[in-house]
Amino acid sequence: MNSLKYYLSQVEQIFNEEQFIFEPRELYEPIDYTLRLGGKRIRPTLLLAANALFGGDEKQVRGAALGIETFHNFTLLHDDLMDRSPLRRGQPTVYTKWGDNTAILSGDTMFALAWRYFLRQPSPRLQEILQCFNETAILVCEGQQMDMNFENMTLDEVDLDAYMEMIRLKTSVLLSGALKIGALYAGATKEELFDIGEFGEHLGLAFQLQDDLLDGYGDTAVFGKKTGQDIRDNKKSILPLLALMHGSPEQQEELLTLFAAKDNLDEEEKVHRVMAIYDAIGLRTIVEEHIDIEFRTAKQYLDAIHAPEEKKAPLRELMETLMGRKK
Amino acid sequence: MNSLKYYLSQVEQIFNEEQFIFEPRELYEPIDYTLRLGGKRIRPTLLLAANALFGGDEKQVRGAALGIETFHNFTLLHDDLMDRSPLRRGQPTVYTKWGDNTAILSGDTMFALAWRYFLRQPSPRLQEILQCFNETAILVCEGQQMDMNFENMTLDEVDLDAYMEMIRLKTSVLLSGALKIGALYAGATKEELFDIGEFGEHLGLAFQLQDDLLDGYGDTAVFGKKTGQDIRDNKKSILPLLALMHGSPEQQEELLTLFAAKDNLDEEEKVHRVMAIYDAIGLRTIVEEHIDIEFRTAKQYLDAIHAPEEKKAPLRELMETLMGRKK
Repeated sequence: MNSLKYYLSQVEQIFNEEQFIFEPRELYEPIDYTLRLGGKRIRPTLLLAANALFGGDEKQVRGAALGIETFHNFTLLHDDLMDRSPLRRGQPTVYTKWGDNTAILSGDTMFALAWRYFLRQPSPRLQEILQCFNETAILVCEGQQMDMNFENMTLDEVDLDAYMEMIRLKTSVLLSGALKIGALYAGATKEELFDIGEFGEHLGLAFQLQDDLLDGYGDTAVFGKKTGQDIRDNKKSILPLLALMHGSPEQQEELLTLFAAKDNLDEEEKVHRVMAIYDAIGLRTIVEEHIDIEFRTAKQYLDAIHAPEEKKAPLRELMETLMGRKK
Repeated sequence: MNSLKYYLSQVEQIFNEEQFIFEPRELYEPIDYTLRLGGKRIRPTLLLAANALFGGDEKQVRGAALGIETFHNFTLLHDDLMDRSPLRRGQPTVYTKWGDNTAILSGDTMFALAWRYFLRQPSPRLQEILQCFNETAILVCEGQQMDMNFENMTLDEVDLDAYMEMIRLKTSVLLSGALKIGALYAGATKEELFDIGEFGEHLGLAFQLQDDLLDGYGDTAVFGKKTGQDIRDNKKSILPLLALMHGSPEQQEELLTLFAAKDNLDEEEKVHRVMAIYDAIGLRTIVEEHIDIEFRTAKQYLDAIHAPEEKKAPLRELMETLMGRKK
């Protein structure tokens, strides 16, 4: 049976064999740059592993694997432009390197390229597969809009349920979609599609909540970035939202003040004061419990699938790796 | 048999029956605004008429008609942002009304919505139909990039063939694609697809060249906008490109100087001097001949299709209307 390492190497091979430079070069160079920057390639790996889980033929899903990762990178490219993020994977983002217009148009083209890859392979379930991909794409856009809306709201205006829905749309549904598409090509049943989809959604929630947690409590050496950035950005992540629910009236008041502050407060002083409230509340444990619920729920859905345990192993390994429970 | 008016009214009905507002509203309001602004609805009309030409069932192509127009409007939305055009159809463009980020994300979502509409209808030729749509979409993006590249070039650096290729990609292939998609749903043969596609490409070229001509020689009352705008914008349209080929060395020299000028020349003086060169060369007649060649080539491809003349009538009528030869 194939290991996680095998699927990761297959994904690398698929990308290495593909050409992304065409004419006009001004359009395709930023696309090639983006798709060759790497990243963890989680979504195509999930797609290949889910396809194998249900007994699919790997050759049939190479296009879909390329397509799902190309789509994901398109959303990152446009998100970086909208969020004005200068760096992605330690390298300059497309808009900083080539300008806004190139970022817009090369992104649009990447969305179309994703479709080209998806359309390479005929399948009796093509309509269903493409609808799954496209409805996922629409939900991702809706999630990004919700995220942008939250930026213009105060901390107490953002509802915890709305936040969970936002991260579900922005992160979970694409993991779930990748798994379901792999399963669809393999001829999975409705029940199998439901289970593998739920596995992906809860894994995505656990992963995103953990990303939120690491911003406050991550080991900079492992995490790869400075902690507290969400606090500096007034980002309404799960941390301040849960802190607001569990804090005393005084702590709530102080959090609201701190998360409304713009430039009238020293940034490090702000991080320090917010973290002090988090610690006093015991926020880390509270968030870890939320993550654990999602992680265990994901695991239950994977357990429920009738398939040889050895075929589930790569997905379990990816899950552990993603959650940092395994090196 | 159905008239052009019938197809136009069907397209209006398709749009009127569709809902474009969903949650989050911040994402969908600009989409609803864009899709309800109207316009000539040429592409879905071509799609319906081509489908009927080859004996198709109109109910099967309603989704594709919606999809092709939604895609077209998505490209206009992003183009307006990239070109910083404040008005579209006499109304404020999305980026001026809601900001750049909304224009980016609502545009992306419109591209996905176009796919949703295309994916509504099953078809034994679904893969072929969707590939036709998607390869068209990629060509449109490439055409927009070429157009943007020309902006950074001097007049003598833009090759006439490259210009014709740019307008083919940016305008013609989508008209051609709409016709081919309508024909594909109706089960058209390879030869029929070629003919209807070529009809669309040459019609698109004739239409775009005429649009270029009208900028210099249009009747403002009919044309709906002030003439000479391409000259003010230093736009390398077919007019200066042909003028450069047909002018004397002195006229060439003056054109190059005028089209390199930025703010150091009175705009109306510049329009006046460029138009004087055009008139001295007899440019209007030269361009009209180019338009006529494309128009007659388009007509020949339509003539070549074996179908009842009455079924071709709406396409002939649309052709005449587009070229302003019929009110």
